[in-house]
Amino acid sequence: MRRATEIDLPLNERPDGMPLQRWLYGELRAAILQGRLGPGARLPATRDLAARHGVSRGTVLGVFAQLAAEGYLSGAVGRGSFVASELPDGRFEAAPASAALPHTRRKAGTRAAAANANAANPGIALSARGRLLARSAFAIEGRSFPSRAFRPSQPDLQSFPFALWARVAARRSRLLNRSMLADGEAQGYRPLREVIAEHVRVTRGIACTADHIAIVGSVQQVIDLAARLWLDPGDAAWMEDPGYHGARLVLEAAGARIAAVPVDMYGIDVAEGRRLAPHARLAYVTAGRQAPLGPALSLERRLALLDWAHAQGALVIEDDYDSEYRFEGRPLAALKSLDKADHVIYCGTFSKLLFPALRIAYAVLPERLVDPFVSAWSLTARHVPLDQQATLHAFIAEGHAGRHVRRMRELYGERAEALREAARRHWTGLLALPPIVAGLDAPAFLPAGADDALAARLAAEAGIETRPLSSYAIERAAPAGLVLGFAGVGADEIDAGARTLARVLQRMLYRT
Amino acid sequence: MRRATEIDLPLNERPDGMPLQRWLYGELRAAILQGRLGPGARLPATRDLAARHGVSRGTVLGVFAQLAAEGYLSGAVGRGSFVASELPDGRFEAAPASAALPHTRRKAGTRAAAANANAANPGIALSARGRLLARSAFAIEGRSFPSRAFRPSQPDLQSFPFALWARVAARRSRLLNRSMLADGEAQGYRPLREVIAEHVRVTRGIACTADHIAIVGSVQQVIDLAARLWLDPGDAAWMEDPGYHGARLVLEAAGARIAAVPVDMYGIDVAEGRRLAPHARLAYVTAGRQAPLGPALSLERRLALLDWAHAQGALVIEDDYDSEYRFEGRPLAALKSLDKADHVIYCGTFSKLLFPALRIAYAVLPERLVDPFVSAWSLTARHVPLDQQATLHAFIAEGHAGRHVRRMRELYGERAEALREAARRHWTGLLALPPIVAGLDAPAFLPAGADDALAARLAAEAGIETRPLSSYAIERAAPAGLVLGFAGVGADEIDAGARTLARVLQRMLYRT
Repeated sequence: MRRATEIDLPLNERPDGMPLQRWLYGELRAAILQGRLGPGARLPATRDLAARHGVSRGTVLGVFAQLAAEGYLSGAVGRGSFVASELPDGRFEAAPASAALPHTRRKAGTRAAAANANAANPGIALSARGRLLARSAFAIEGRSFPSRAFRPSQPDLQSFPFALWARVAARRSRLLNRSMLADGEAQGYRPLREVIAEHVRVTRGIACTADHIAIVGSVQQVIDLAARLWLDPGDAAWMEDPGYHGARLVLEAAGARIAAVPVDMYGIDVAEGRRLAPHARLAYVTAGRQAPLGPALSLERRLALLDWAHAQGALVIEDDYDSEYRFEGRPLAALKSLDKADHVIYCGTFSKLLFPALRIAYAVLPERLVDPFVSAWSLTARHVPLDQQATLHAFIAEGHAGRHVRRMRELYGERAEALREAARRHWTGLLALPPIVAGLDAPAFLPAGADDALAARLAAEAGIETRPLSSYAIERAAPAGLVLGFAGVGADEIDAGARTLARVLQRMLYRT
Repeated sequence: MRRATEIDLPLNERPDGMPLQRWLYGELRAAILQGRLGPGARLPATRDLAARHGVSRGTVLGVFAQLAAEGYLSGAVGRGSFVASELPDGRFEAAPASAALPHTRRKAGTRAAAANANAANPGIALSARGRLLARSAFAIEGRSFPSRAFRPSQPDLQSFPFALWARVAARRSRLLNRSMLADGEAQGYRPLREVIAEHVRVTRGIACTADHIAIVGSVQQVIDLAARLWLDPGDAAWMEDPGYHGARLVLEAAGARIAAVPVDMYGIDVAEGRRLAPHARLAYVTAGRQAPLGPALSLERRLALLDWAHAQGALVIEDDYDSEYRFEGRPLAALKSLDKADHVIYCGTFSKLLFPALRIAYAVLPERLVDPFVSAWSLTARHVPLDQQATLHAFIAEGHAGRHVRRMRELYGERAEALREAARRHWTGLLALPPIVAGLDAPAFLPAGADDALAARLAAEAGIETRPLSSYAIERAAPAGLVLGFAGVGADEIDAGARTLARVLQRMLYRT
């Protein structure tokens, strides 16, 4: 190490009113820049400097820290502070806004270039679990607007009472109490939790209060957090096969070993689940309308599932993603309504009920799971924006949400009928459409053996959005088919889309 | 299994205009309820029923599924469908809203009762990692308003230009394009990312574009996701000791093994970190103002930290939680501005800059990490509410955010001075306050050996909020002291709070 010089440092007098620290900082920095304190020079001990200039030692320490942060000093406690051998000389200044940027990220679509860059500089490697986490089930780029035939899982945004929502939001903003600027309850804005509890009590038969509700941004967050709270890596989780890939990917990313349980016309086959993975710690089910095939879980199986969960101490996640929209038969109560032993987390979302960009969902939690869930939510995410929650609360409490859903139920029922009509007209021998009793989308079946992924690709090239059933398959081959959204576009577009799709399939299946 | 009877089932004719499915459902349900189809009776094969009544097999399957869902049928594919041995008899109906609720969750504070309930019914056990996840670093119950002396990490909410924010939000709502109802970009609303990129280029010296920015709800989410993406369970992560407990808890919950690296007046001791955990995969640092002790990381150590990260392929998370508020010396550029090898994720938050309930934060990501981060974010959370992002964008783009921050920098500087004044007046022999150069709070030191947790508890009883330095300690004893927020309350309250705190400490330290 370079030999340091102890020096006696003369400083200019402090101007009246200048804080001690600012004065000392300026004097020392000037001494360094003018070379009076040269590279490698040892600074006086903080204690001596403090005593000599009548300042506290804390002030001197603060100045030294600032100078070190800026690169003028280096050193370590106990060994003294030294002028840096190389002065920062501006390299620590903020770059001008107009500076040329070293990176300009590729646009989507040129991933090959990115892969090459990665090969040249391996940089930071994904963890094993990170490789499972860095797979999105969703459209990263956002959704084009307006929607097109037959984009799945889309409510009709053209029919959303947009001006009304804006009015409620604006009024909320004006009336907002300043206290709404402070951190809110992690569990969610209580008035919103209260109207949600009322809603699920009445429409879904779930006995609960606001204390059981947690407000989150998305159902994915509930699945992710629940899997981490109640599963250790390698624990088994039941998934419906075929089943909702968004849930499967997030469960896998959380370290769950997926037990793929077959689905038939009564929903998930509980007996088969018990055989395949009797000691699973979690089951994810779409009991109201199985995603993607559509059947509701039979009462017999609901009871069997709950019995199993109770006996095993397993958690059941009921994703009730579009149950509000039921066009035939009586509305079904939720699986959670039968949950006497309190093992079911029920999830609902306003992204499908109102609009996707809202990003508010909720969980109805078993009594004993509320505290751990809310603690974990608070640790990893804090809470959902408060004024967003307040606007949604007003929109529900004033009856607008209920009115909108009733209107949409009727509209989507008509569109389901339009899809049936179009199927009869255009799809004979190409696509079979089972009855549509509920939801925003429906599966339609291709002739056995057809390649539905190819069909979806060809349809996309013709401007028609679908999702192949094979993309929902886990271990078993799913029936060949396409999931078709019918709620987001009008009857005319449904008919035109059906015709286009028929043309595509005709060519693919029969090479004509 | 009970012997089933194959029957020939007479049905009433379908009224004109009634959909086939609704008719068949009603007829079969009536036959069951009237006992014409008794418990255990086998239903006709779907194929026969379809042929006999001239409906599609799909329609029959749909009706059977609905009846099974409601509990009237049970069965399994290939073995036929049977009338349930026990009819649902209303137990599957939604409960009336006024029904007595089996659960009424305890209020906070009666956790003993909950613990007893758990003992009686062990229910669903937390996973090992779940036990680490179910610990919140934050106030679950939300924050009282207005703030009190000396609540840490609080911006002044009384000074927030509330009416202006409401006006911008209302205007945004009115002008909002309907396309803003659809799912947005997972990475965040591009115009917001652009103004943030501009901001960090100019004020923090970070060379980046909107393509490197990801909008999230909180910095905790960035740490959580980054740890899961780039650490496997058991991998080491450097934490400053003492350091920010929110970060430590979320890293531990993600399975990181914490390497507690000591902090001195130059920030985290990088050489010691290399000695303790040379192969760590991640380092979390508060380079701008170390939380809780305050020093900025010296340039020498910044370069050493980046060298180490580059050599190890490790990730550095720079949490720049309150750097906007610097009252003395020149503003420091971010650690990220020196990051030539692109290993640093820089995080900033608007919760401290504007108001906590906003819940918008952002990360500036290394080029190569953007895609995996955004994919994982999309999978686990989707995106931040779009109109919230649009309002914030307008608020920044129109200059309101910048004006507010400049006003607050002046105000908080005055309050820091008020705290220094109060310390001189009231705290001699009780609490030593080092110079305050930046931030919303400052550590103050108790006489060596004092019990700061006790001090914080006694202060809380006297209505004064503080956070003991010991709560930041990981492996080493932290100096005894209290973290005091000075930004959230006025000068008078600072003086009054300092006097109350002095009284409490006087009694505790000297039993007078």
